[in-house]
Amino acid sequence: MEMWIKEEQIADAAMTYKIKETLVRKQTEFQDLAIVDTYAFGRMLLLDGIVQTTIKDEFVYHEMITHIPLFTHSKPKNVLVVGGGDGGVIREIMKHPSVEKAVLCEIDKCVIEECKKYLPEISSELENPRCEIFVGDGIKYVHEHKNKFDVIIVDSTDPFGAAEGLFGGSFYKEISECLTDDGIFIAQTETPFYLPEVVKKVFNDAKEVFPITKLFMAAIPTYPGGYWSFTIGSKKYDPANPNSENIFDVKTKYYNGDIHKASFVLPNYIKNLINN
Amino acid sequence: MEMWIKEEQIADAAMTYKIKETLVRKQTEFQDLAIVDTYAFGRMLLLDGIVQTTIKDEFVYHEMITHIPLFTHSKPKNVLVVGGGDGGVIREIMKHPSVEKAVLCEIDKCVIEECKKYLPEISSELENPRCEIFVGDGIKYVHEHKNKFDVIIVDSTDPFGAAEGLFGGSFYKEISECLTDDGIFIAQTETPFYLPEVVKKVFNDAKEVFPITKLFMAAIPTYPGGYWSFTIGSKKYDPANPNSENIFDVKTKYYNGDIHKASFVLPNYIKNLINN
Repeated sequence: MEMWIKEEQIADAAMTYKIKETLVRKQTEFQDLAIVDTYAFGRMLLLDGIVQTTIKDEFVYHEMITHIPLFTHSKPKNVLVVGGGDGGVIREIMKHPSVEKAVLCEIDKCVIEECKKYLPEISSELENPRCEIFVGDGIKYVHEHKNKFDVIIVDSTDPFGAAEGLFGGSFYKEISECLTDDGIFIAQTETPFYLPEVVKKVFNDAKEVFPITKLFMAAIPTYPGGYWSFTIGSKKYDPANPNSENIFDVKTKYYNGDIHKASFVLPNYIKNLINN
Repeated sequence: MEMWIKEEQIADAAMTYKIKETLVRKQTEFQDLAIVDTYAFGRMLLLDGIVQTTIKDEFVYHEMITHIPLFTHSKPKNVLVVGGGDGGVIREIMKHPSVEKAVLCEIDKCVIEECKKYLPEISSELENPRCEIFVGDGIKYVHEHKNKFDVIIVDSTDPFGAAEGLFGGSFYKEISECLTDDGIFIAQTETPFYLPEVVKKVFNDAKEVFPITKLFMAAIPTYPGGYWSFTIGSKKYDPANPNSENIFDVKTKYYNGDIHKASFVLPNYIKNLINN
């Protein structure tokens, strides 16, 4: 018998993956969690049926959402990750020796537990003494910590359902207050090809809060459209023009100093979307 | 009843599209040709079950495979398209007033006929008096025309089966002889994420023939991995550093002068692939 899973990426189009086995499937307090072993992409985490990360292509997302803000900031000491229970962002943060503490604020402890168990390549640094894990609501955590973090990374699920509150102007205002005076905020902000209105709204919401707001793109095979946007809001440093002297050699499969800058260069259809 | 088509993008992973109707399906002399109307991407051309182009995302491929070489060359007069029977490349070439003649050399006349009928948005310029259509074998055509074209665009299917001869060193040598002294060659060269060995081989084959060989990437949602490579071989001009003064305003949805240069900036895993 062949077993396949199917992810509807947009209405009337889906990706299907043949799987070897289901490693875990459970209804947590917050979502339907599954980790399956696929033939094409290795082990894969799904939340509410949406692919979150896979062993084979996770490097693109985790490197780009982490190194772009961290290398833009000259010397980040305190970093907050909202969501990101799989640990991939924490793993990348730990490559920056300037970071003294990285707080992971994940609402669903089951994500952390199951990723520790089944995705050790991704969760490997969650036990690092520089990482502090807080299980709870990101919105509340951000509200209760003012002027505290140099970089805040919102590594959330899509802006529908559970993570909806992590997108939009009122949360970005709280984020801004939680950041230090030269702080930087970044979030994954969906695909401009399939969801142009979402990208546009999120970008404009961030733009109302941050003096410098930019959008960059990365090519992630298992995400819908294969081409993903990230929105970055900064109080002082321009993320599209980082000081090259700050960019030291870091072991990566996607990120490098040149791709850092090139990722902010946008095709016309995306440029027009956020400039109108 | 729901009708879906399924394209196996790599072993054990597939995209599926819900369709409204099949507009044409026939076995031509060379391949299984189908044009279907999908809900998510509009009308879609498939050859031997492989998605070639769709109304919704064709602009990325056609703009990038055309404008990058044409803007790299200062004043292309004669352009050859090998394959490309849908007409999308011809449509983009016609946006360059310097072009006096564009020859389309397509082996399968059914592709031209059916695309004229069902994909008029793409085939619209096939009747342009500056376009000359030749139905026949591209390898033979290239062999019989020496020192003739400023730009040769190989817009072929994948390097398995019918189009296999359009990839590799011996064809690239013929291409080089078919080009003028400052000529430029470009081909679609698959996805480095799924087929790294193919990308590497094709790039190295081209590099043995052309003084300047570069690889660039474009984000195409309906192609496997969503992130497609193009290999460009040039006798004189560096495609990664075009003279900005040559780049005039052209109506495009993806291409612009900045994305031209940024597309040549590669993530580490691709850079390492072609540098080793």
